Amino acid sequence: MEQLHEECGVFGIYSPKSCDIAKTVYYGLFALQHRGQEGAGIVVNTDGVFSSRKDLGLVNEVFSPAALAALPQGSMAVGHVRYGTTGGNSRANCQPIEVNHIKGHLALAHNGNLTNAFELRQALELKGAIFHTTSDTETIAYLITRARLTAPSIEEAVVQAMPELVGAYSLILMSSQKLIALRDPLGFRPLCYGLRPDGSYVVASESCALDAVGANFVRDIGPGEVVVIDENGLRTVKPPVSPAPKSLCVFEYIYFARPDSVIDGNSVHLARQKTGEFLAKTYPVEADLVIGAPDSGLDAALGYSHASGIPYGIGFVKNKYVGRSFIAPNQADRTNTVKIKLNPISSVVAGKRIVLVDDSIVRGTTSRQTIALLRQAGAREVHMRVAAPPFRHACFYGVDVDSPENLVANHHTPAEIAALIGADSVGYVQPEQLCHLAAQMPGICTACFTGDYPTSVPSHTEKDRFEQKLSKK
Amino acid sequence: MEQLHEECGVFGIYSPKSCDIAKTVYYGLFALQHRGQEGAGIVVNTDGVFSSRKDLGLVNEVFSPAALAALPQGSMAVGHVRYGTTGGNSRANCQPIEVNHIKGHLALAHNGNLTNAFELRQALELKGAIFHTTSDTETIAYLITRARLTAPSIEEAVVQAMPELVGAYSLILMSSQKLIALRDPLGFRPLCYGLRPDGSYVVASESCALDAVGANFVRDIGPGEVVVIDENGLRTVKPPVSPAPKSLCVFEYIYFARPDSVIDGNSVHLARQKTGEFLAKTYPVEADLVIGAPDSGLDAALGYSHASGIPYGIGFVKNKYVGRSFIAPNQADRTNTVKIKLNPISSVVAGKRIVLVDDSIVRGTTSRQTIALLRQAGAREVHMRVAAPPFRHACFYGVDVDSPENLVANHHTPAEIAALIGADSVGYVQPEQLCHLAAQMPGICTACFTGDYPTSVPSHTEKDRFEQKLSKK
Amino acid sequence: MEQLHEECGVFGIYSPKSCDIAKTVYYGLFALQHRGQEGAGIVVNTDGVFSSRKDLGLVNEVFSPAALAALPQGSMAVGHVRYGTTGGNSRANCQPIEVNHIKGHLALAHNGNLTNAFELRQALELKGAIFHTTSDTETIAYLITRARLTAPSIEEAVVQAMPELVGAYSLILMSSQKLIALRDPLGFRPLCYGLRPDGSYVVASESCALDAVGANFVRDIGPGEVVVIDENGLRTVKPPVSPAPKSLCVFEYIYFARPDSVIDGNSVHLARQKTGEFLAKTYPVEADLVIGAPDSGLDAALGYSHASGIPYGIGFVKNKYVGRSFIAPNQADRTNTVKIKLNPISSVVAGKRIVLVDDSIVRGTTSRQTIALLRQAGAREVHMRVAAPPFRHACFYGVDVDSPENLVANHHTPAEIAALIGADSVGYVQPEQLCHLAAQMPGICTACFTGDYPTSVPSHTEKDRFEQKLSKK
Amino acid sequence: MEQLHEECGVFGIYSPKSCDIAKTVYYGLFALQHRGQEGAGIVVNTDGVFSSRKDLGLVNEVFSPAALAALPQGSMAVGHVRYGTTGGNSRANCQPIEVNHIKGHLALAHNGNLTNAFELRQALELKGAIFHTTSDTETIAYLITRARLTAPSIEEAVVQAMPELVGAYSLILMSSQKLIALRDPLGFRPLCYGLRPDGSYVVASESCALDAVGANFVRDIGPGEVVVIDENGLRTVKPPVSPAPKSLCVFEYIYFARPDSVIDGNSVHLARQKTGEFLAKTYPVEADLVIGAPDSGLDAALGYSHASGIPYGIGFVKNKYVGRSFIAPNQADRTNTVKIKLNPISSVVAGKRIVLVDDSIVRGTTSRQTIALLRQAGAREVHMRVAAPPFRHACFYGVDVDSPENLVANHHTPAEIAALIGADSVGYVQPEQLCHLAAQMPGICTACFTGDYPTSVPSHTEKDRFEQKLSKK
Repeated sequence: MEQLHEECGVFGIYSPKSCDIAKTVYYGLFALQHRGQEGAGIVVNTDGVFSSRKDLGLVNEVFSPAALAALPQGSMAVGHVRYGTTGGNSRANCQPIEVNHIKGHLALAHNGNLTNAFELRQALELKGAIFHTTSDTETIAYLITRARLTAPSIEEAVVQAMPELVGAYSLILMSSQKLIALRDPLGFRPLCYGLRPDGSYVVASESCALDAVGANFVRDIGPGEVVVIDENGLRTVKPPVSPAPKSLCVFEYIYFARPDSVIDGNSVHLARQKTGEFLAKTYPVEADLVIGAPDSGLDAALGYSHASGIPYGIGFVKNKYVGRSFIAPNQADRTNTVKIKLNPISSVVAGKRIVLVDDSIVRGTTSRQTIALLRQAGAREVHMRVAAPPFRHACFYGVDVDSPENLVANHHTPAEIAALIGADSVGYVQPEQLCHLAAQMPGICTACFTGDYPTSVPSHTEKDRFEQKLSKK
Repeated sequence: MEQLHEECGVFGIYSPKSCDIAKTVYYGLFALQHRGQEGAGIVVNTDGVFSSRKDLGLVNEVFSPAALAALPQGSMAVGHVRYGTTGGNSRANCQPIEVNHIKGHLALAHNGNLTNAFELRQALELKGAIFHTTSDTETIAYLITRARLTAPSIEEAVVQAMPELVGAYSLILMSSQKLIALRDPLGFRPLCYGLRPDGSYVVASESCALDAVGANFVRDIGPGEVVVIDENGLRTVKPPVSPAPKSLCVFEYIYFARPDSVIDGNSVHLARQKTGEFLAKTYPVEADLVIGAPDSGLDAALGYSHASGIPYGIGFVKNKYVGRSFIAPNQADRTNTVKIKLNPISSVVAGKRIVLVDDSIVRGTTSRQTIALLRQAGAREVHMRVAAPPFRHACFYGVDVDSPENLVANHHTPAEIAALIGADSVGYVQPEQLCHLAAQMPGICTACFTGDYPTSVPSHTEKDRFEQKLSKK
Repeated sequence: MEQLHEECGVFGIYSPKSCDIAKTVYYGLFALQHRGQEGAGIVVNTDGVFSSRKDLGLVNEVFSPAALAALPQGSMAVGHVRYGTTGGNSRANCQPIEVNHIKGHLALAHNGNLTNAFELRQALELKGAIFHTTSDTETIAYLITRARLTAPSIEEAVVQAMPELVGAYSLILMSSQKLIALRDPLGFRPLCYGLRPDGSYVVASESCALDAVGANFVRDIGPGEVVVIDENGLRTVKPPVSPAPKSLCVFEYIYFARPDSVIDGNSVHLARQKTGEFLAKTYPVEADLVIGAPDSGLDAALGYSHASGIPYGIGFVKNKYVGRSFIAPNQADRTNTVKIKLNPISSVVAGKRIVLVDDSIVRGTTSRQTIALLRQAGAREVHMRVAAPPFRHACFYGVDVDSPENLVANHHTPAEIAALIGADSVGYVQPEQLCHLAAQMPGICTACFTGDYPTSVPSHTEKDRFEQKLSKK
Repeated sequence: MEQLHEECGVFGIYSPKSCDIAKTVYYGLFALQHRGQEGAGIVVNTDGVFSSRKDLGLVNEVFSPAALAALPQGSMAVGHVRYGTTGGNSRANCQPIEVNHIKGHLALAHNGNLTNAFELRQALELKGAIFHTTSDTETIAYLITRARLTAPSIEEAVVQAMPELVGAYSLILMSSQKLIALRDPLGFRPLCYGLRPDGSYVVASESCALDAVGANFVRDIGPGEVVVIDENGLRTVKPPVSPAPKSLCVFEYIYFARPDSVIDGNSVHLARQKTGEFLAKTYPVEADLVIGAPDSGLDAALGYSHASGIPYGIGFVKNKYVGRSFIAPNQADRTNTVKIKLNPISSVVAGKRIVLVDDSIVRGTTSRQTIALLRQAGAREVHMRVAAPPFRHACFYGVDVDSPENLVANHHTPAEIAALIGADSVGYVQPEQLCHLAAQMPGICTACFTGDYPTSVPSHTEKDRFEQKLSKK
């Protein structure tokens, strides 16, 4: 498991009139698929009646033509893509979650992670609450519906519940008549909205999902802001606590988000290209060709090429048919796992001194295999340039990082890593360069590189702490 | 839709040691499949950790070999088969339901229906409760877990919660360490337990499920009784309120239960045979042959034959490959829908005066088609004898009867019904005969025939009252 | 594997006008499902263009609503259900087979088995023929299309090819414009036709398939007869060689065919009932109750009861949800395999002396388990009566019998078998009684009981002789 | 349908010892998936016994882990990926085809198309041959097996049959003991072989499939060459008719083949890069940025950038989750179909003069949508450069081109096309430049651009001529 995983993507839409709204959510989720590949769900609101489909699988798999056609027309809907652990109960954890309470229905789609979820949950249970899932989202649903017992409106209940929540949350809620979107006060996870020519409001984790459904980007939801959309249009019920996030996850720029998205004012592609430029300045090398590891190293590779003057080349062909059902070679085969997915173009790399730009080194296994392929194809030198700083710490805000003991950067110097992965040299982006990825950078969270967490961290950190706790009784 | 539907079957097992317990539940549910064909579920308890699989479909479909193998070993498990409405949310309503609360996990499998569910739920919601499903079972789970906040044990919490519940409930609960079974004070739905040679306790809706898993029948759970099974074996924590049920659903004997089951002391097959004997005495007729409509009319037909002296014959062949995926003929085909499933044996019925015994007449459509088949096959006369009284009223205790306006007996005399279905005569079992189906009959509920309900009836009767309520907000 | 297997069922229809013909074939095949559960296929003829679907699985599985809807309208169609060996190539062996030749298309559906297939095939290969399948049917297709090179019509080509074929074949062929049905001169396998009110001709292995599609039975196809159906209706192009078959497989009456079918003038149900009467006379016993092993022993049990005066009872409940996807108990479970499918009704059998009538004993395992169930349920005595003679020899005419060394009757006397299966006594039908199953019996083949084969037997007998042969090169 | 389709890819392997050979073929076919996405098949040879699986679908879909595991170990195997028409019979047309003949088994995998197939087939049918499929491959199988009746070996039979075949064929045959590979005398389709460190010989349509299975490229099979591989290794039984092909399909270089393949001595990537260089010289333009349409325009775009000095940029993000099950927007949605799959990066293209390089223009619809996206994203100018000459004629050698009336280049000048697709200018590669894509170019076929066919063309051209012919009888 040589990858980082984003936990979620969220999408919501409010249309002035009933339409085939699930299909629009489908395209939106499809554009957010890179944010979560384990499960997908859509809840449609038809005059206050909720219909839903949620299951494990890719958007394409969960929403077959028949499944999509089975969802009714409606004027509001909310959708979710999710990364999570596999297991017997994971289907129950699919989002958006739906709850019934005294004042009506509620559907919630959540991207992020609370750091005080354990304490909040325990307090609720002591008052008699029961939980069907192990996700933070059900805890948030409880807090909001409890606030709703006395609050005059659902949006007011949301505002009242927010101070209890600590951590990262970009959230879309749908009630019988309203769509509500909010973002935590530090702005860890992105959230933005747009408007379609037909008057529909669209809220999504990334602007690429607005593009996919023909919505024009209006602006990001601010840190700590709550907006509500209903028959009167969109209005802010709680203003942002600051003009820009204080702790936007920098990995959104350098790894997770799609290059065509614009987050908190900055193009993801340009930010990534910038990492390449930094690498060219900090770790120059004499070479013949700069190539990127497909697909996530290509933007930075182009930046390295521009800044260094070394020509940019296409060094690999990626097999575009690799998917979830692909049968990976087993160890006994001694087949290079990477090779099936990625084949070097010998005519390009043979005899050359190569700068290989990739997005990250987690354990080092993939890098070692990739470099081996280049050498077999005749590369004379391979200089690895990594478009991120070394990974060292756990994330408590919604990213599933490998456990610290598996992170190669926790045990080795760059020189040792170069030896381990077979590179002639290795260079990383410097943590202090990250706040210069664009002219107008928001405040960023770099805890996974530095260990400086912008909030208190969880007293119980296991993802499955509830199972753990209960299983010991 | 010419049938009556039982809502559920439940099954629980407590084994002295960990084993491939899901497979035992599978066989048990398989034997209870006739009680519910819409969904199935199993929750396994492995040292306090719960694993589950629940989905829409037959036991065979939900528990494919791979799905069954994916469930872990364990020492306790609970299972459920369910009939319910189809729809977007119905997967969420699959049982056993599982909840997490302050004192641990709980899984519940429920057969029956509360008549005060609406009021209970509203009261809970006013205290801030949220609901994920629209089923009574979640309400019961709430009441028990709230009682558990102060009760010294889960079984004591169950005993404390019971007085709040009105209606029909045969229930199996599994906590981290105990299996609990209980039956409502009127004993509407059956529940019994047995013991396997390996020391496992088995609780099930019907004794046929004990047979299927090699358990020896011990006794029925009494009305209002609560038993708990744990490492010390089985003990009664709340004794029965009466030696036998006051309101056992009589349709268990004459329609729902499997003929090989023994319920509250009486053989289902013999009770059904008895209905045939009553019919022979009350509605004698000169005829050449008695035949049963497969499969559910066969027991009563044999009774009619014995009591009347008219020979018993095999008049139909039922196509045993008809299943859920069978494509029914459409109206345009003008094909006799019944014919594909049931073909008369001409050599048996041609030229004969036939007594046809069936279990019930709901709308009359099926009876009309069946009798038409017999006449086409050459039957000279067809006398319909129905092994139940005429159906006239809704059931609030867990049976899905067609709506009263569709029940042919609400609009027509037996003579009119005979004309409608093309029979030479029609005879029904008399309601007053029902308490003589066996020598030692328990008290029975005959509300669907007489309209005399043994409890208060619901103020809100729609199955989907929660959706209705909310959709209007 | 404790069962006998019929190899195939065939169905053909010629309609005067184009219609949703595949659906009619679907119902017909569905009624013939008992003749073959491994594969199913339909070929539709739409103005000379053939469309088909063939696959492994039950009729219901191969023809999902979508699959059936994908077949076009047409005026002719032919269908097939098949039993065969499982394996990599078995899909290729699904029927009807379709071939293109110089004069057009041909689709063939075949029930039976040639005894000279090996020789015919070798001769064709020596002339350059290539084969895609390992089935006899392709050989027949070759012989007919070769004859067609010179014959003036397809029906004449069929007539010319017939003398080359030795063995059992009931065959339906469809060309661009005609439907042809034929039966081998000894009449091993049944074949009959009927007429629907809309003027369609229907040909099928058994009359129950005519009933299923609303066709009125007209008559059996005679031994050696060839009929052709086209725009001019049905005509015989080669008359029967004798008024009735000389070698109809007697197992059609006593085991394979559906009880509601009428074959060569006799009711299958009555023939089966007759076996019970013979058993009552030949092997009388003092007993309290006669019960049949569901479903195939019921007809004979009724006959035994009538002839002996011992009351008929319902002794078992069969779980009607047992299907192909049912997970059978494994040895380690020590669960009685039969018990999951078949549960005795204790209230019926306890304390009784039982006559148990079943259709056959192959290896004896199932009988032993069934009798054990009865004894556990309290039966005092169990007398086994078998509605067929002892099985001793292989069949070369389309029945898959267990290999002779596994047949218990080849190694043990009836008394020994009684001891082996735990019965108090065992009685079989006498081979000489078989020609008296009805007043007007056709000539019958009883080779599997007597070893007297009505034709030469194959020089190479393995089902997979072609694979064997080639694999050794 | 805005695309060109290659008909097939072939793969064969001969291993000195039995192994899990199907898995190797799986990886090989996976690397050839771009040559055919409609069907896939593998035949494994285990000591002369053939086992196979063939079905419609992608390699991943046909060969699920279970399906792959069901194939046995073996020492030889042949595989195929196929593009073809969808329809009732198309499963029967899946390859490799397998036939049994007097001398044994034969499996054939074919890439190409015969131009005299109709005449060959008619001649065979007149001698009594029957055909199960409508593909050329079955005709080839017949000719070879007929030659085999007298030829001393299978390879000699192949050599004898070749003169009868006119058109394009790269073919792999597997007999019980040998693997044979051959290529038509004009060398239309590529075919090469390599050697693995374990001594296995691998034959494949493209060298990228050798890379995928760890085989070292040895050489191309020459035009008209026949090689046989058996226990004695590989030997040529018929030498090439010329050192290089006379008529290699030039579209292999500029469209079909994978950029990492090397065909007849030339790198596909470099040939494609060369087309970009030609475009830069023939159609220079003042611009700010060169971008390629992903993925097939990227190589040429890089060439254009290098030759013109205009910077290369990444202008689009392609949604990598688009697959066969993706639900395309319908017309009513008015959603830009292309947009869901391809989103421009506004920060890159806004305000720029763009050179957009794509591989071809077929109907023009896709180009129009793509250019519209760029303009919406703020591009100031869009100059379309097409890395191929205009498409004007049908291909009879294995490529499924749209019908001539749909080809926009048949009705419009480049200037008109520019207007139609909304480009500021359009430039195509010149047909005469095609023979200079590399220093050592083989003879090429450019018939689809020029109409100069290197062989006689079919008298009957419809793909489905056999159905047509027969349906009219």
